[in-house]
Parts: sequence; structure tokens; C-alpha cells
Amino acid sequence: MIAHSFRGEEFGPAQKLHGATYVVDASFSRPELDAAGMVVDIGLAATRLKEVLADLNYRNLDEEPAFAGRNTTTEFLAREIFERLAAAVRAGTLGDGARGVASIAVTLHESHVAWGRYEGAL
Amino acid sequence: MIAHSFRGEEFGPAQKLHGATYVVDASFSRPELDAAGMVVDIGLAATRLKEVLADLNYRNLDEEPAFAGRNTTTEFLAREIFERLAAAVRAGTLGDGARGVASIAVTLHESHVAWGRYEGAL
Amino acid sequence: MIAHSFRGEEFGPAQKLHGATYVVDASFSRPELDAAGMVVDIGLAATRLKEVLADLNYRNLDEEPAFAGRNTTTEFLAREIFERLAAAVRAGTLGDGARGVASIAVTLHESHVAWGRYEGAL
Amino acid sequence: MIAHSFRGEEFGPAQKLHGATYVVDASFSRPELDAAGMVVDIGLAATRLKEVLADLNYRNLDEEPAFAGRNTTTEFLAREIFERLAAAVRAGTLGDGARGVASIAVTLHESHVAWGRYEGAL
Amino acid sequence: MIAHSFRGEEFGPAQKLHGATYVVDASFSRPELDAAGMVVDIGLAATRLKEVLADLNYRNLDEEPAFAGRNTTTEFLAREIFERLAAAVRAGTLGDGARGVASIAVTLHESHVAWGRYEGAL
Amino acid sequence: MIAHSFRGEEFGPAQKLHGATYVVDASFSRPELDAAGMVVDIGLAATRLKEVLADLNYRNLDEEPAFAGRNTTTEFLAREIFERLAAAVRAGTLGDGARGVASIAVTLHESHVAWGRYEGAL
Repeated sequence: MIAHSFRGEEFGPAQKLHGATYVVDASFSRPELDAAGMVVDIGLAATRLKEVLADLNYRNLDEEPAFAGRNTTTEFLAREIFERLAAAVRAGTLGDGARGVASIAVTLHESHVAWGRYEGAL
Repeated sequence: MIAHSFRGEEFGPAQKLHGATYVVDASFSRPELDAAGMVVDIGLAATRLKEVLADLNYRNLDEEPAFAGRNTTTEFLAREIFERLAAAVRAGTLGDGARGVASIAVTLHESHVAWGRYEGAL
Repeated sequence: MIAHSFRGEEFGPAQKLHGATYVVDASFSRPELDAAGMVVDIGLAATRLKEVLADLNYRNLDEEPAFAGRNTTTEFLAREIFERLAAAVRAGTLGDGARGVASIAVTLHESHVAWGRYEGAL
Repeated sequence: MIAHSFRGEEFGPAQKLHGATYVVDASFSRPELDAAGMVVDIGLAATRLKEVLADLNYRNLDEEPAFAGRNTTTEFLAREIFERLAAAVRAGTLGDGARGVASIAVTLHESHVAWGRYEGAL
Repeated sequence: MIAHSFRGEEFGPAQKLHGATYVVDASFSRPELDAAGMVVDIGLAATRLKEVLADLNYRNLDEEPAFAGRNTTTEFLAREIFERLAAAVRAGTLGDGARGVASIAVTLHESHVAWGRYEGAL
Repeated sequence: MIAHSFRGEEFGPAQKLHGATYVVDASFSRPELDAAGMVVDIGLAATRLKEVLADLNYRNLDEEPAFAGRNTTTEFLAREIFERLAAAVRAGTLGDGARGVASIAVTLHESHVAWGRYEGAL
């Protein structure tokens, strides 16, 4: 649940400070399941996703140094969250089995009609 | 898509400026249908609801004079929108048939898990 | 999945022959559960609802004798389906336990934003 | 995510040990908001609901002493969860403001088509 | 909200004139965001999609010259809408930034269980 | 609506016998529509999917010989259902037109937040 504003005439009324609820989904893909029969440990993945989101939630993103000079569009945020989850997979935070994950897709639902997604390989 | 902040320790991190997407539903009830077989003209009702929401959308509610000194909680906003729709029914903006509407319920969905509603008689 | 048209200027473009998918829910209420711990036998209720809908599905409602001279609005159809389910409860088609059902609400979802409902006592 | 079985011919194949995911919603109602502008502190309410569900999750309900001799239908479980939340409100676990809550409705969604609800006054 | 009928025994009862509500989503993909940080201007895209749908809405598709001799299946309509959106992208109607869009997927939801999609490159 | 348990410490409380409701979707893809303008005959596909699920529903999967020694994870079950649908396509059970289906994706929704999918070529 963040506040932010956009720069650029194409954003119209969204140039003013406003806000959004993002419901965030992450999906993990791989060609073969791990030894336990899983794509990823959903418990570890959910915990890490919640930690990533806790670092963004209840903020005015216009004041976050990490995003200085950037439009924090839904698309941009989807990639940002992807990068943080991808780093967790590479670091082993999601367990050894997760090292077989081939790609992650992160979707930010901003309402019942609008969403943005970033999908990338690991 | 609004920005706002709350006053009161019970709001925890929501005391900081943050934001929310509200998906807003209005439902109209009456004991008997009008002559055309309708509860309300859904076209007129949707138009009026969009106008009511346009007055709130893309705003920082902390800076709206109408809400000065108030916590703009989901519950509070649901009633606010109810009052504006109820006034429209009484003024005939939704058509003569709508004068038979007995009650309106306004629901604000702030995510897939959280919502607030106000229901009142006309 | 029905076709129909409406009479009356207030219906605008819906005066032309058009169509709709209705996803239909029925909910049954009672003050106390039956001896088996149920509100209603969901298997029997679903079967009866499907039969009621089969009598309406894949039709042009403008040509149905039962609806001659009526606008088959969502609201009207909700009551029609309610009456047919209520008759089934009274006739014992949903089982003896269902005789304790106090009210039924029938909801027709015509899209992700529009729905109509009829709720009545038995 | 529980396992259970039902006794009674009307349950058909559900007499065998099977299982269900229940997505559980609780909604709180009151005539007037509390001093902070809330129906209930959603953080405290969500925490208590999670605790109540944690006592039921990942269980074979046929082996729970609390449910001995009972069919743990969706309807039955809805009331059970209602009673536990109602007790929390009365005990002040949801905060002093929550003492103004007038009723609670608990809904268990068992799939995209089937749900059960219990609603009661406090 | 269209009416139509299908030719071919495999369509069973859908050979009769019936109707459907289609909830239509369009998603745009590209390898890199545009200069403003967007995949596409969601305001322009939504406006164009609404225009495309307005040309089909509240019609009996059996009488539309553009579809003469064709079964207007969900799959067929998804491609039709794709082609119209793709033409808009190529014509610059969605803005210069949208020229970087690489593919579009159009999904028609005809109920909570049935949908059709066409995805194509630009 | 199945019961099962998992072997492996990573499953935590899910090592105990518990259960799940799976809402199962199957989507069929192909480069060109068949002669009737369809991807697949949705009636035949739905019938076959229901038959496949009827063989799994209301069971304790720990006792199914076909799954002996396997963790019946959501991911595993998605592939299992894929294989059974793929066999039906190859055998002509979904009609001659379905022989042009190029791939099938099977998704098992286990709640509003968790799902697993298997997608494979035919």
C-alpha cells in the first residue's frame, strides 16, 4: 500500500501524489521438479516475498533513495521485486532445491482490471 | 487510487503516508421492481458512481478540506460515498424509477482480503 | 448463455437483440442446521439449480412464452429462479432436511462488475 | 487444509476420508464506528483469526477430540470459528474499540462455487 | 454482451440463437520499457480497447456483415480484437512509446470457467 | 477434495494427514483453429477433465496404488492430469479436430493464493 507520483505529461492526473494497493504474485518455473517433488518450497518463497514487500509497504516511494529519479510504475516495481527474489534464489535463501528454478514471473495487480508483470530467466 | 495517512497508534505503519487502490461497488435494494423491471438504471447509477469517485481519485486525502481532522479509513470512505449516492437518488439524478430504492450498500475493496462496507436506508 | 432484448428507452442500446452469460449462485439460510449438520444437501441443491438453468440456457428469451410481454432483466430472472428453487424446497425435491430452509438468495452475475439478486423467505 | 469424513448416506462419496482447503473470511459489523474511525482493528482481527485457524489447519478433523461425534461440515466449522472470534471480542483481545462490534459473519469458501457462512450477534 | 448462433453439429444447443457476456482483457509485452518506464500508456490502451468493443457490443453477431459465414467463437473473436489493437499500435494510436510493444494477448472470459485467448507478435 | 500427507522435513506441518480442494483448469493451445473455428470442443474437453478428476476426487491419495511412494504435491498432480488429458487427445476422445492441439497447461488452484501448473507439448 504505497504512495507515489509520476513525472511526464502522459501520466495525466497520476502526476499528483496518489496511492495504490498492489497484490503481488510470484510464480517460479523449472523444467523438472526437485527431489521432494516441488518447484520451490512455497513456505520459504512466501516468507522471502513478504520480506521483500515489507521493505516497500506503507511508504511514499517518492522519498525512497533507491528509486530517486525513477517513475515507480507497476512495470518497474515488478522488475524490482523480480530482481530481489532472483537474488534470494541465487543466494540459496529459498533452499538448495530452488537452485533448479529456471525463471520467475512477478505480477502486481493494482486493481481488478490493471496489472503489470516482469518475467525473467535466472 | 488515493494517498493518505492515519493518526492514532493503533494504525502502526499506516501512520506514515501510504496509499491504496479501492475497487468500489454499490448495490441498490428495493422491495419491488420499477415499471421497467429494474432495481435501478445501471447506466445512470454507474455514471453517478464514477463521478463521485472522480472527485476522490488521484488525490492525497490528507490535503482534502472536506476530510480535515478525520481518519479517512475504508469504513469512513464507504459512508462518504453512500451519502453522495443517496443524495443523488433523492435528487432524482438516477431517474424517477430510482425513487423506490430502499437502501444502498457501498463496498470498498482495498485488496483481495480486506474490504469495508456501509449500508444504509434511504 | 441467453439472448434477449429490452423494451423501454431507458435501456438504450440494450433495446437491440443482444446476449449475456449469467453465472448463477443460490444461497440457502436457516436458523439451525438439520440433523446431519447441513443447511441443505449441496448435491441435491446443485442438481436442481442446474435443471432450472437448463430450462433457460441457450435460448432467445424474447421467444419464450413464459416471459411474453416482460423485460427479462437480471433482477426479473433472479426472482424467477428463486421461485423455481423455492417450489423445489416446498415439494421436498431437496430432501426432508431442506424443509427447514428459511430463505433463499439467488444472484445472477452478468459480468465482473454487474449482478442482480433476489432474496425471499420460504 | 484439513482432512475429514462425514457420516450419513446423504454425504455420498464424502463419507470417505477426503480433504478441503477453506479460505476463511470474517466480517465485523456495528452501527457506529469507534473513536479512531474503525469497525475493528484489522491487524488484531487478522492475527486472532490466523491463530484460530492455526488450531485447525493441517489436521485430520476426524481425530480432533473437540469434534468427536460431529460432522465437521463447512456450516459447522463456520459457527465454530465464529464462537472463537466472538469470545476474543468479548475478552478484549481485539482491543477496547472492538467491544462495539454488534455481529460477526464467518464465511468458509471451499471452492470457487461452494461456501458456508455463520452470522451471529455478539 | 452479444447474441449469436453457431453452425455445426459439434456446437449442440449452441446452434440456437443465444448470447454471452465477454469480459475482455488485453495484455501488452515488450523486452524493455519505454522512456517513461511503461509497457504501454494504459489510458490510451483502455480507450482504444473500449472503442473496439463498442463496435461489437449489444449486437447480434449473426447479422454483422464483417462476420458473414463465420462462426464467431470466443477464439475467433479474440483474434479479431487482437488484429484491431495491433493495427492501432502500428498506426501510433497508442502513442509513440507503444511502437516498442512486441506482442499482444487478448483474452475473452465468457464465464468464471470458460475463456479463449489469442496471442500474437506485432 | 482430497486427503494426503507429505514425506520430507521441508513439508513441516503438511507431513501430517491433511487435505485440499483443488480447482482445476485446463487450457489447450494450437497455432491455427480447426475447421469449426475452435481450439478444442469445450464440451468434450470438460467432460474428459471431469472424468479424470472423478478418478481422484474424495480420496485419500496416500492409499492410491498409482501414487505409492510419491509425494502428491500440487505440481505432481498437475502433471498427472496433463498426462491423462494428453492421452485423451492422442486417442481422439476429444474429437478429430483436437488432434491439432499443440500443448496443454493444467493448473491446480489450491487456494486464492497458491497454485501449481504443468504445461507440456503434445
